[in-house]
Amino acid sequence: MAEKVRGTLVIVGGHEDKDGSCDILREVVRLAGAREARLLVLTTATELGLEAGSDYRRLFLGLGAAKVDALHLDTREAANRPQAREVMERATGIFFTGGDQLRITSTLGGTVAYQALHRCYENGVIIAGTSAGASAMSSTMIVGGAEDDSPRRGSVSMAPGMGLLNEVVVDQHFAQRGRIGRLLSAVAQNPHILGLGIDEDTAVVVAADGSLSVIGSQTVTVVDGHGMDHSNATEASPRQALALFNVVLHVLAAGYRYDLVSRKPLARRA
Amino acid sequence: MAEKVRGTLVIVGGHEDKDGSCDILREVVRLAGAREARLLVLTTATELGLEAGSDYRRLFLGLGAAKVDALHLDTREAANRPQAREVMERATGIFFTGGDQLRITSTLGGTVAYQALHRCYENGVIIAGTSAGASAMSSTMIVGGAEDDSPRRGSVSMAPGMGLLNEVVVDQHFAQRGRIGRLLSAVAQNPHILGLGIDEDTAVVVAADGSLSVIGSQTVTVVDGHGMDHSNATEASPRQALALFNVVLHVLAAGYRYDLVSRKPLARRA
Repeated sequence: MAEKVRGTLVIVGGHEDKDGSCDILREVVRLAGAREARLLVLTTATELGLEAGSDYRRLFLGLGAAKVDALHLDTREAANRPQAREVMERATGIFFTGGDQLRITSTLGGTVAYQALHRCYENGVIIAGTSAGASAMSSTMIVGGAEDDSPRRGSVSMAPGMGLLNEVVVDQHFAQRGRIGRLLSAVAQNPHILGLGIDEDTAVVVAADGSLSVIGSQTVTVVDGHGMDHSNATEASPRQALALFNVVLHVLAAGYRYDLVSRKPLARRA
Repeated sequence: MAEKVRGTLVIVGGHEDKDGSCDILREVVRLAGAREARLLVLTTATELGLEAGSDYRRLFLGLGAAKVDALHLDTREAANRPQAREVMERATGIFFTGGDQLRITSTLGGTVAYQALHRCYENGVIIAGTSAGASAMSSTMIVGGAEDDSPRRGSVSMAPGMGLLNEVVVDQHFAQRGRIGRLLSAVAQNPHILGLGIDEDTAVVVAADGSLSVIGSQTVTVVDGHGMDHSNATEASPRQALALFNVVLHVLAAGYRYDLVSRKPLARRA
Protein backbone atom coordinates (compact mmCIF):
# COMPACT_ATOMS: atom_id res chain seq x y z
CA MET A 1 0.00 0.00 0.00
CA ALA A 2 2.75 2.46 0.92
CA GLU A 3 4.10 2.61 -2.62
CA LYS A 4 0.62 3.50 -3.85
CA VAL A 5 0.61 6.76 -1.89
CA ARG A 6 2.93 8.99 -3.86
CA GLY A 7 2.54 12.49 -2.47
CA THR A 8 0.69 14.33 0.25
CA LEU A 9 -3.09 14.47 0.38
CA VAL A 10 -5.31 16.58 2.63
CA ILE A 11 -8.79 15.03 2.68
CA VAL A 12 -11.37 17.28 4.36
CA GLY A 13 -14.82 16.14 5.57
CA GLY A 14 -16.56 19.37 4.49
CA HIS A 15 -17.63 22.50 6.38
CA GLU A 16 -14.08 23.30 7.49
CA ASP A 17 -13.80 26.35 9.72
CA LYS A 18 -13.50 29.55 7.66
CA ASP A 19 -14.15 32.19 10.34
CA GLY A 20 -12.16 31.10 13.39
CA SER A 21 -8.68 29.64 13.64
CA CYS A 22 -9.05 27.97 10.21
CA ASP A 23 -6.80 25.09 11.32
CA ILE A 24 -7.40 22.94 8.27
CA LEU A 25 -7.05 25.58 5.55
CA ARG A 26 -4.02 26.96 7.42
CA GLU A 27 -2.42 23.50 7.30
CA VAL A 28 -3.03 23.31 3.54
CA VAL A 29 -1.13 26.60 3.12
CA ARG A 30 1.66 25.44 5.43
CA LEU A 31 2.11 22.11 3.62
CA ALA A 32 2.10 23.88 0.24
CA GLY A 33 5.01 26.09 1.28
CA ALA A 34 3.58 28.68 3.70
CA ARG A 35 4.70 32.15 2.52
CA GLU A 36 5.89 30.53 -0.69
CA ALA A 37 2.68 28.58 -1.31
CA ARG A 38 1.21 28.90 -4.81
CA LEU A 39 -2.27 27.44 -4.60
CA LEU A 40 -4.67 26.50 -7.36
CA VAL A 41 -8.36 26.19 -6.43
CA LEU A 42 -10.24 23.80 -8.74
CA THR A 43 -13.98 24.42 -8.64
CA THR A 44 -15.15 21.79 -11.12
CA ALA A 45 -17.38 20.11 -8.49
CA THR A 46 -19.72 23.06 -8.18
CA GLU A 47 -21.95 25.02 -10.54
CA LEU A 48 -21.09 28.11 -8.51
CA GLY A 49 -17.44 27.97 -9.50
CA LEU A 50 -16.77 31.70 -9.62
CA GLU A 51 -18.09 32.29 -6.09
CA ALA A 52 -16.31 29.25 -4.61
CA GLY A 53 -13.09 30.21 -6.37
CA SER A 54 -13.09 33.78 -5.11
CA ASP A 55 -14.05 32.73 -1.55
CA TYR A 56 -11.17 30.26 -1.24
CA ARG A 57 -8.81 32.66 -2.99
CA ARG A 58 -9.55 35.31 -0.34
CA LEU A 59 -9.24 32.74 2.49
CA PHE A 60 -5.91 31.28 1.34
CA LEU A 61 -4.41 34.74 0.71
CA GLY A 62 -5.59 35.76 4.20
CA LEU A 63 -3.75 32.74 5.60
CA GLY A 64 -0.52 33.90 3.99
CA ALA A 65 -0.25 32.05 0.67
CA ALA A 66 1.99 33.84 -1.84
CA LYS A 67 -0.32 33.32 -4.80
CA VAL A 68 -3.77 31.79 -5.31
CA ASP A 69 -5.42 31.09 -8.67
CA ALA A 70 -8.90 29.72 -9.19
CA LEU A 71 -9.70 27.61 -12.22
CA HIS A 72 -13.21 26.57 -13.20
CA LEU A 73 -12.91 23.71 -15.66
CA ASP A 74 -16.57 23.00 -16.35
CA THR A 75 -16.31 21.11 -19.65
CA ARG A 76 -14.05 18.39 -21.00
CA GLU A 77 -13.04 20.83 -23.75
CA ALA A 78 -11.76 23.27 -21.14
CA ALA A 79 -9.99 20.46 -19.27
CA ASN A 80 -8.19 19.44 -22.46
CA ARG A 81 -6.68 22.87 -23.23
CA PRO A 82 -2.93 23.11 -22.66
CA GLN A 83 -3.46 26.22 -20.48
CA ALA A 84 -5.05 23.98 -17.82
CA ARG A 85 -1.84 22.00 -17.60
CA GLU A 86 0.33 25.09 -17.52
CA VAL A 87 -1.50 26.69 -14.58
CA MET A 88 -1.43 23.39 -12.66
CA GLU A 89 2.30 22.98 -13.22
CA ARG A 90 2.98 26.29 -11.48
CA ALA A 91 1.12 25.26 -8.28
CA THR A 92 2.65 23.91 -5.05
CA GLY A 93 -0.85 22.90 -3.86
CA ILE A 94 -4.14 22.09 -5.60
CA PHE A 95 -7.43 22.40 -3.70
CA PHE A 96 -10.72 20.81 -4.85
CA THR A 97 -13.85 22.52 -3.56
CA GLY A 98 -17.12 20.79 -2.64
CA GLY A 99 -20.09 20.21 -4.91
CA ASP A 100 -20.75 16.92 -6.69
CA GLN A 101 -17.94 14.38 -6.96
CA LEU A 102 -19.36 13.05 -10.24
CA ARG A 103 -18.88 16.49 -11.82
CA ILE A 104 -15.17 16.22 -10.97
CA THR A 105 -14.60 12.79 -12.47
CA SER A 106 -16.96 13.04 -15.44
CA THR A 107 -15.49 16.41 -16.45
CA LEU A 108 -11.81 15.80 -15.71
CA GLY A 109 -11.39 12.03 -16.09
CA GLY A 110 -8.76 11.21 -18.73
CA THR A 111 -8.21 14.82 -19.84
CA VAL A 112 -5.01 16.85 -20.07
CA ALA A 113 -5.87 18.40 -16.67
CA TYR A 114 -6.37 14.94 -15.14
CA GLN A 115 -2.96 13.75 -16.35
CA ALA A 116 -1.38 16.98 -15.13
CA LEU A 117 -3.00 16.48 -11.70
CA HIS A 118 -1.48 13.02 -11.37
CA ARG A 119 1.92 14.29 -12.49
CA CYS A 120 1.74 17.16 -9.96
CA TYR A 121 0.87 14.64 -7.23
CA GLU A 122 3.81 12.41 -8.15
CA ASN A 123 6.09 15.45 -8.08
CA GLY A 124 5.12 16.27 -4.48
CA VAL A 125 2.44 18.92 -5.02
CA ILE A 126 -0.06 18.87 -2.11
CA ILE A 127 -3.50 17.71 -3.30
CA ALA A 128 -6.35 18.78 -1.01
CA GLY A 129 -10.10 18.47 -1.33
CA THR A 130 -13.17 19.11 0.79
CA SER A 131 -16.53 17.32 0.73
CA ALA A 132 -17.01 16.21 -2.92
CA GLY A 133 -13.32 17.00 -3.42
CA ALA A 134 -12.55 14.55 -0.60
CA SER A 135 -14.72 11.73 -1.92
CA ALA A 136 -13.19 11.98 -5.38
CA MET A 137 -9.65 11.21 -4.11
CA SER A 138 -9.94 7.44 -3.82
CA SER A 139 -9.89 4.82 -6.59
CA THR A 140 -13.52 3.97 -5.94
CA MET A 141 -15.62 6.80 -4.59
CA ILE A 142 -19.01 6.99 -2.91
CA VAL A 143 -21.37 9.09 -5.04
CA GLY A 144 -24.56 8.77 -3.04
CA GLY A 145 -26.56 6.65 -0.67
CA ALA A 146 -28.85 6.44 2.30
CA GLU A 147 -28.25 8.49 5.44
CA ASP A 148 -29.48 7.58 8.92
CA ASP A 149 -30.29 4.07 7.71
CA SER A 150 -29.30 0.48 8.43
CA PRO A 151 -26.56 -0.93 6.20
CA ARG A 152 -27.92 -2.68 3.09
CA ARG A 153 -26.18 -3.61 -0.15
CA GLY A 154 -28.22 -1.02 -2.01
CA SER A 155 -27.63 1.78 0.49
CA VAL A 156 -24.54 3.13 -1.26
CA SER A 157 -23.69 3.92 -4.88
CA MET A 158 -20.10 4.05 -6.03
CA ALA A 159 -18.14 5.07 -9.13
CA PRO A 160 -14.47 5.25 -10.18
CA GLY A 161 -12.69 8.14 -8.43
CA MET A 162 -9.47 9.99 -9.25
CA GLY A 163 -7.25 7.20 -7.96
CA LEU A 164 -4.94 9.32 -5.80
CA LEU A 165 -5.48 6.98 -2.83
CA ASN A 166 -5.90 3.27 -3.40
CA GLU A 167 -7.61 0.57 -1.30
CA VAL A 168 -9.54 3.19 0.65
CA VAL A 169 -13.06 4.55 0.27
CA VAL A 170 -13.75 7.99 1.74
CA ASP A 171 -17.03 9.32 3.07
CA GLN A 172 -17.44 12.93 4.27
CA HIS A 173 -19.89 14.92 6.47
CA PHE A 174 -19.70 11.53 8.21
CA ALA A 175 -21.20 11.75 11.72
CA GLN A 176 -23.20 14.87 10.86
CA ARG A 177 -25.18 13.08 8.14
CA GLY A 178 -25.42 9.61 9.73
CA ARG A 179 -23.35 7.80 7.10
CA ILE A 180 -21.97 4.81 9.04
CA GLY A 181 -24.56 2.49 7.43
CA ARG A 182 -23.53 3.31 3.88
CA LEU A 183 -19.80 3.14 4.69
CA LEU A 184 -20.28 -0.32 6.26
CA SER A 185 -22.17 -1.31 3.12
CA ALA A 186 -19.27 -0.12 0.92
CA VAL A 187 -16.70 -2.04 3.01
CA ALA A 188 -18.90 -5.18 3.03
CA GLN A 189 -18.75 -5.25 -0.76
CA ASN A 190 -14.96 -5.65 -0.58
CA PRO A 191 -13.57 -5.94 2.95
CA HIS A 192 -10.05 -5.42 1.67
CA ILE A 193 -10.98 -1.75 1.18
CA LEU A 194 -10.58 0.46 4.25
CA GLY A 195 -13.46 2.83 5.01
CA LEU A 196 -12.56 6.38 6.11
CA GLY A 197 -15.48 8.40 7.48
CA ILE A 198 -14.40 12.02 7.90
CA ASP A 199 -16.52 14.39 10.00
CA GLU A 200 -17.13 18.03 9.18
CA ASP A 201 -14.31 20.47 10.08
CA THR A 202 -11.96 17.48 10.24
CA ALA A 203 -9.31 16.23 7.82
CA VAL A 204 -6.72 13.54 7.33
CA VAL A 205 -3.26 14.41 6.04
CA VAL A 206 -1.92 11.38 4.18
CA ALA A 207 1.86 11.35 3.81
CA ALA A 208 3.87 9.55 1.16
CA ASP A 209 4.86 6.84 3.68
CA GLY A 210 1.18 5.84 4.06
CA SER A 211 0.72 7.40 7.49
CA LEU A 212 -2.35 9.46 8.08
CA SER A 213 -2.80 12.13 10.74
CA VAL A 214 -5.98 13.82 11.90
CA ILE A 215 -6.54 17.57 12.21
CA GLY A 216 -9.66 19.57 13.01
CA SER A 217 -12.39 19.65 15.63
CA GLN A 218 -14.29 16.37 15.11
CA THR A 219 -13.37 12.74 14.40
CA VAL A 220 -12.33 10.31 11.69
CA THR A 221 -13.86 6.83 11.81
CA VAL A 222 -11.76 4.03 10.32
CA VAL A 223 -13.83 0.97 9.30
CA ASP A 224 -11.61 -2.10 8.88
CA GLY A 225 -13.39 -5.18 7.52
CA HIS A 226 -10.27 -7.38 7.18
CA GLY A 227 -11.30 -9.59 10.10
CA MET A 228 -14.93 -9.88 9.00
CA ASP A 229 -15.47 -13.62 9.28
CA HIS A 230 -19.10 -13.68 8.17
CA SER A 231 -21.38 -11.52 6.09
CA ASN A 232 -24.53 -11.94 4.00
CA ALA A 233 -23.44 -9.31 1.47
CA THR A 234 -23.33 -11.80 -1.39
CA GLU A 235 -26.83 -13.19 -1.06
CA ALA A 236 -28.70 -10.18 0.35
CA SER A 237 -31.06 -8.34 -1.97
CA PRO A 238 -30.34 -4.61 -2.41
CA ARG A 239 -33.00 -3.55 0.17
CA GLN A 240 -32.28 -6.32 2.66
CA ALA A 241 -30.51 -5.56 5.94
CA LEU A 242 -26.86 -6.65 5.99
CA ALA A 243 -25.26 -8.81 8.67
CA LEU A 244 -21.53 -8.26 9.27
CA PHE A 245 -19.46 -9.91 12.00
CA ASN A 246 -16.27 -8.54 13.55
CA VAL A 247 -15.80 -5.21 11.84
CA VAL A 248 -13.09 -3.20 13.63
CA LEU A 249 -13.74 0.48 14.22
CA HIS A 250 -11.26 3.14 15.25
CA VAL A 251 -12.38 6.63 16.16
CA LEU A 252 -9.55 9.16 15.80
CA ALA A 253 -9.46 12.74 17.08
CA ALA A 254 -7.01 15.55 16.24
CA GLY A 255 -3.38 14.56 16.81
CA TYR A 256 -4.03 10.84 16.35
CA ARG A 257 -2.46 8.94 13.49
CA TYR A 258 -3.17 5.77 11.55
CA ASP A 259 -0.78 3.70 9.46
CA LEU A 260 -2.41 2.63 6.19
CA VAL A 261 0.36 0.07 5.64
CA SER A 262 0.11 -1.85 8.92
CA ARG A 263 -3.55 -0.86 9.44
CA LYS A 264 -2.86 0.25 13.00
CA PRO A 265 -3.99 3.37 14.88
CA LEU A 266 -1.24 5.29 16.67
CA ALA A 267 -1.74 7.32 19.83
CA ARG A 268 -0.95 11.00 20.01
CA ARG A 269 2.71 11.90 20.24
CA ALA A 270 3.55 12.69 23.88
CA MET B 1 -23.40 -12.88 32.63
CA ALA B 2 -25.75 -15.77 31.87
CA GLU B 3 -27.01 -15.99 35.44
CA LYS B 4 -27.92 -12.33 35.32
CA VAL B 5 -30.49 -12.91 32.57
CA ARG B 6 -33.33 -14.58 34.40
CA GLY B 7 -36.28 -14.60 32.04
CA THR B 8 -37.15 -13.63 28.49
CA LEU B 9 -36.92 -10.06 27.26
CA VAL B 10 -38.13 -8.60 23.96
CA ILE B 11 -36.35 -5.29 23.39
CA VAL B 12 -37.82 -3.34 20.47
CA GLY B 13 -36.12 -0.40 18.73
CA GLY B 14 -39.35 1.58 18.28
CA HIS B 15 -41.74 2.05 15.33
CA GLU B 16 -42.49 -1.68 15.11
CA ASP B 17 -44.80 -2.62 12.25
CA LYS B 18 -48.47 -2.31 13.29
CA ASP B 19 -50.22 -2.48 9.90
CA GLY B 20 -48.48 -5.28 7.99
CA SER B 21 -47.31 -8.68 9.17
CA CYS B 22 -46.63 -7.28 12.69
CA ASP B 23 -43.76 -9.77 13.14
CA ILE B 24 -42.49 -8.28 16.38
CA LEU B 25 -45.79 -7.82 18.20
CA ARG B 26 -46.84 -11.27 16.95
CA GLU B 27 -43.70 -12.77 18.51
CA VAL B 28 -44.51 -11.06 21.83
CA VAL B 29 -47.93 -12.76 21.80
CA ARG B 30 -46.41 -16.11 20.82
CA LEU B 31 -43.78 -16.00 23.56
CA ALA B 32 -46.40 -15.00 26.15
CA GLY B 33 -48.47 -18.09 25.38
CA ALA B 34 -50.16 -17.44 22.02
CA ARG B 35 -53.90 -18.15 22.40
CA GLU B 36 -53.35 -18.35 26.15
CA ALA B 37 -51.37 -15.10 26.37
CA ARG B 38 -52.53 -12.68 29.05
CA LEU B 39 -50.79 -9.40 28.30
CA LEU B 40 -50.44 -6.30 30.41
CA VAL B 41 -49.60 -3.04 28.59
CA LEU B 42 -47.80 -0.57 30.87
CA THR B 43 -48.04 2.99 29.54
CA THR B 44 -46.12 4.85 32.24
CA ALA B 45 -43.59 6.18 29.69
CA THR B 46 -46.15 8.32 27.89
CA GLU B 47 -48.50 11.14 28.84
CA LEU B 48 -50.94 9.70 26.32
CA GLY B 49 -51.40 6.52 28.31
CA LEU B 50 -55.07 5.92 27.52
CA GLU B 51 -54.54 6.13 23.76
CA ALA B 52 -51.36 4.01 23.80
CA GLY B 53 -53.04 1.44 26.03
CA SER B 54 -56.09 1.07 23.85
CA ASP B 55 -54.02 0.95 20.63
CA TYR B 56 -51.80 -1.89 21.88
CA ARG B 57 -54.81 -3.65 23.44
CA ARG B 58 -56.53 -3.72 20.04
CA LEU B 59 -53.31 -4.85 18.30
CA PHE B 60 -52.51 -7.69 20.71
CA LEU B 61 -56.12 -8.94 20.71
CA GLY B 62 -56.04 -8.84 16.89
CA LEU B 63 -52.91 -11.01 17.02
CA GLY B 64 -54.74 -13.63 19.06
CA ALA B 65 -53.90 -12.91 22.70
CA ALA B 66 -56.51 -14.31 25.11
CA LYS B 67 -56.63 -11.21 27.33
CA VAL B 68 -55.02 -7.76 27.25
CA ASP B 69 -55.14 -5.20 30.06
CA ALA B 70 -53.70 -1.73 29.96
CA LEU B 71 -52.44 -0.06 33.11
CA HIS B 72 -51.44 3.59 33.32
CA LEU B 73 -49.40 4.01 36.47
CA ASP B 74 -48.61 7.73 36.27
CA THR B 75 -47.74 8.46 39.91
CA ARG B 76 -45.69 6.71 42.56
CA GLU B 77 -48.87 6.53 44.67
CA ALA B 78 -50.61 4.53 41.94
CA ALA B 79 -47.53 2.30 41.55
CA ASN B 80 -47.59 1.52 45.27
CA ARG B 81 -51.22 0.31 45.41
CA PRO B 82 -51.61 -3.46 45.86
CA GLN B 83 -53.93 -3.59 42.82
CA ALA B 84 -50.92 -2.83 40.60
CA ARG B 85 -49.21 -5.97 41.87
CA GLU B 86 -52.32 -8.09 41.52
CA VAL B 87 -52.89 -7.20 37.87
CA MET B 88 -49.20 -7.82 37.09
CA GLU B 89 -49.28 -11.22 38.77
CA ARG B 90 -52.02 -12.39 36.41
CA ALA B 91 -50.00 -11.56 33.25
CA THR B 92 -47.93 -13.95 31.13
CA GLY B 93 -46.36 -10.97 29.33
CA ILE B 94 -45.78 -7.30 30.23
CA PHE B 95 -45.28 -4.73 27.47
CA PHE B 96 -43.81 -1.25 28.05
CA THR B 97 -44.84 1.38 25.48
CA GLY B 98 -42.65 4.21 24.23
CA GLY B 99 -42.46 7.73 25.62
CA ASP B 100 -39.77 8.88 28.02
CA GLN B 101 -37.65 6.28 29.81
CA LEU B 102 -37.16 8.63 32.78
CA ARG B 103 -40.93 8.63 33.36
CA ILE B 104 -40.75 4.84 33.71
CA THR B 105 -37.92 4.73 36.23
CA SER B 106 -38.80 7.86 38.19
CA THR B 107 -42.42 6.75 38.57
CA LEU B 108 -41.94 3.02 39.13
CA GLY B 109 -38.46 2.73 40.66
CA GLY B 110 -38.62 1.01 44.06
CA THR B 111 -42.43 0.79 44.19
CA VAL B 112 -44.69 -2.20 44.72
CA ALA B 113 -45.19 -2.38 40.93
CA TYR B 114 -41.39 -2.35 40.38
CA GLN B 115 -40.87 -5.23 42.79
CA ALA B 116 -43.76 -7.12 41.19
CA LEU B 117 -42.19 -6.58 37.76
CA HIS B 118 -38.91 -8.13 38.88
CA ARG B 119 -40.72 -11.05 40.49
CA CYS B 120 -42.76 -11.63 37.32
CA TYR B 121 -39.52 -11.60 35.28
CA GLU B 122 -37.87 -14.13 37.60
CA ASN B 123 -40.94 -16.34 37.30
CA GLY B 124 -40.67 -16.47 33.51
CA VAL B 125 -43.12 -13.77 32.48
CA ILE B 126 -42.07 -12.22 29.13
CA ILE B 127 -41.01 -8.59 29.57
CA ALA B 128 -41.17 -6.55 26.36
CA GLY B 129 -40.65 -2.87 25.68
CA THR B 130 -40.42 -0.56 22.69
CA SER B 131 -38.44 2.67 22.32
CA ALA B 132 -38.35 4.21 25.84
CA GLY B 133 -39.57 0.83 27.12
CA ALA B 134 -36.51 -0.75 25.47
CA SER B 135 -33.99 1.73 26.87
CA ALA B 136 -35.31 1.29 30.41
CA MET B 137 -34.52 -2.46 30.47
CA SER B 138 -30.80 -2.26 31.22
CA SER B 139 -29.07 -1.48 34.51
CA THR B 140 -27.77 1.78 33.14
CA MET B 141 -29.94 3.39 30.50
CA ILE B 142 -29.38 6.13 27.95
CA VAL B 143 -31.78 8.99 28.62
CA GLY B 144 -30.66 11.45 25.97
CA GLY B 145 -27.82 12.67 23.86
CA ALA B 146 -26.59 13.98 20.57
CA GLU B 147 -27.72 12.48 17.27
CA ASP B 148 -25.77 12.64 14.01
CA ASP B 149 -22.68 13.77 15.91
CA SER B 150 -19.14 12.61 16.60
CA PRO B 151 -18.65 10.66 19.83
CA ARG B 152 -17.73 12.89 22.78
CA ARG B 153 -17.88 12.18 26.49
CA GLY B 154 -20.71 14.68 26.86
CA SER B 155 -22.74 13.37 23.92
CA VAL B 156 -24.76 10.92 25.99
CA SER B 157 -26.59 11.20 29.32
CA MET B 158 -27.34 8.10 31.34
CA ALA B 159 -29.32 7.13 34.44
CA PRO B 160 -30.10 3.95 36.36
CA GLY B 161 -32.52 1.72 34.44
CA MET B 162 -34.78 -1.13 35.56
CA GLY B 163 -31.94 -3.62 35.82
CA LEU B 164 -33.55 -6.47 33.89
CA LEU B 165 -30.46 -6.83 31.70
CA ASN B 166 -27.04 -6.24 33.17
CA GLU B 167 -23.73 -5.22 31.57
CA VAL B 168 -25.54 -3.96 28.48
CA VAL B 169 -26.65 -0.50 27.42
CA VAL B 170 -29.47 -0.27 24.89
CA ASP B 171 -30.12 2.46 22.35
CA GLN B 172 -33.19 2.49 20.09
CA HIS B 173 -34.25 4.18 16.81
CA PHE B 174 -30.56 3.51 16.26
CA ALA B 175 -29.65 3.89 12.57
CA GLN B 176 -32.71 6.04 11.88
CA ARG B 177 -31.60 8.73 14.33
CA GLY B 178 -27.82 8.51 13.81
CA ARG B 179 -26.99 7.32 17.33
CA ILE B 180 -23.71 5.45 16.83
CA GLY B 181 -21.73 8.40 18.26
CA ARG B 182 -23.59 8.46 21.55
CA LEU B 183 -23.51 4.65 21.92
CA LEU B 184 -19.73 4.66 21.34
CA SER B 185 -19.50 7.38 23.98
CA ALA B 186 -21.49 5.26 26.46
CA VAL B 187 -19.29 2.19 25.84
CA ALA B 188 -16.10 4.28 26.10
CA GLN B 189 -17.09 5.24 29.64
CA ASN B 190 -16.98 1.58 30.67
CA PRO B 191 -15.83 -0.78 27.90
CA HIS B 192 -16.98 -3.78 29.92
CA ILE B 193 -20.55 -2.76 29.03
CA LEU B 194 -21.84 -4.03 25.69
CA GLY B 195 -23.65 -1.51 23.49
CA LEU B 196 -26.81 -2.69 21.70
CA GLY B 197 -28.12 -0.32 19.03
CA ILE B 198 -31.55 -1.49 17.90
CA ASP B 199 -33.06 -0.08 14.71
CA GLU B 200 -36.72 0.73 14.22
CA ASP B 201 -39.05 -2.22 13.50
CA THR B 202 -36.35 -4.51 14.87
CA ALA B 203 -36.04 -6.32 18.19
CA VAL B 204 -33.82 -8.66 20.15
CA VAL B 205 -35.28 -11.57 22.05
CA VAL B 206 -33.00 -12.30 25.01
CA ALA B 207 -33.40 -15.81 26.42
CA ALA B 208 -32.58 -16.95 29.94
CA ASP B 209 -29.38 -18.63 28.71
CA GLY B 210 -28.01 -15.23 27.60
CA SER B 211 -28.50 -15.79 23.89
CA LEU B 212 -30.04 -13.05 21.88
CA SER B 213 -31.83 -13.40 18.53
CA VAL B 214 -32.86 -10.70 16.10
CA ILE B 215 -36.32 -10.27 14.58
CA GLY B 216 -37.76 -7.53 12.37
CA SER B 217 -36.87 -5.70 9.19
CA GLN B 218 -33.72 -3.70 10.08
CA THR B 219 -30.52 -4.39 12.05
CA VAL B 220 -29.04 -4.57 15.52
CA THR B 221 -25.54 -3.15 15.98
CA VAL B 222 -23.45 -4.70 18.76
CA VAL B 223 -20.64 -2.42 20.01
CA ASP B 224 -18.00 -4.41 21.90
CA GLY B 225 -15.30 -2.31 23.55
CA HIS B 226 -13.54 -5.18 25.37
CA GLY B 227 -10.54 -5.07 23.06
CA MET B 228 -10.27 -1.27 23.13
CA ASP B 229 -6.58 -0.81 23.82
CA HIS B 230 -6.52 2.98 23.85
CA SER B 231 -8.98 5.77 24.47
CA ASN B 232 -8.89 9.38 25.61
CA ALA B 233 -12.23 9.08 27.46
CA THR B 234 -10.64 9.85 30.83
CA GLU B 235 -8.92 13.08 29.95
CA ALA B 236 -11.26 14.44 27.25
CA SER B 237 -13.47 17.38 28.18
CA PRO B 238 -17.22 16.82 27.67
CA ARG B 239 -17.28 18.60 24.26
CA GLN B 240 -13.98 17.17 23.01
CA ALA B 241 -13.96 14.51 20.30
CA LEU B 242 -13.20 11.01 21.60
CA ALA B 243 -10.51 8.71 20.24
CA LEU B 244 -11.18 4.97 20.57
CA PHE B 245 -9.01 2.20 19.14
CA ASN B 246 -10.16 -1.32 18.22
CA VAL B 247 -13.86 -1.28 18.93
CA VAL B 248 -15.50 -4.39 17.48
CA LEU B 249 -18.80 -3.95 15.68
CA HIS B 250 -21.27 -6.64 14.66
CA VAL B 251 -24.27 -5.84 12.49
CA LEU B 252 -27.02 -8.43 12.88
CA ALA B 253 -30.10 -8.91 10.70
CA ALA B 254 -33.22 -11.00 11.35
CA GLY B 255 -32.42 -14.62 12.15
CA TYR B 256 -28.93 -13.87 13.44
CA ARG B 257 -28.03 -14.53 17.05
CA TYR B 258 -25.47 -13.28 19.54
CA ASP B 259 -24.28 -14.93 22.73
CA LEU B 260 -24.03 -12.42 25.57
CA VAL B 261 -21.96 -14.91 27.61
CA SER B 262 -19.19 -15.61 25.08
CA ARG B 263 -19.71 -12.27 23.28
CA LYS B 264 -19.83 -14.00 19.90
CA PRO B 265 -22.20 -13.47 16.97
CA LEU B 266 -23.77 -16.61 15.54
CA ALA B 267 -24.78 -17.07 11.92
CA ARG B 268 -28.32 -17.87 10.90
CA ARG B 269 -29.41 -21.44 11.44
CA ALA B 270 -29.19 -23.27 8.08
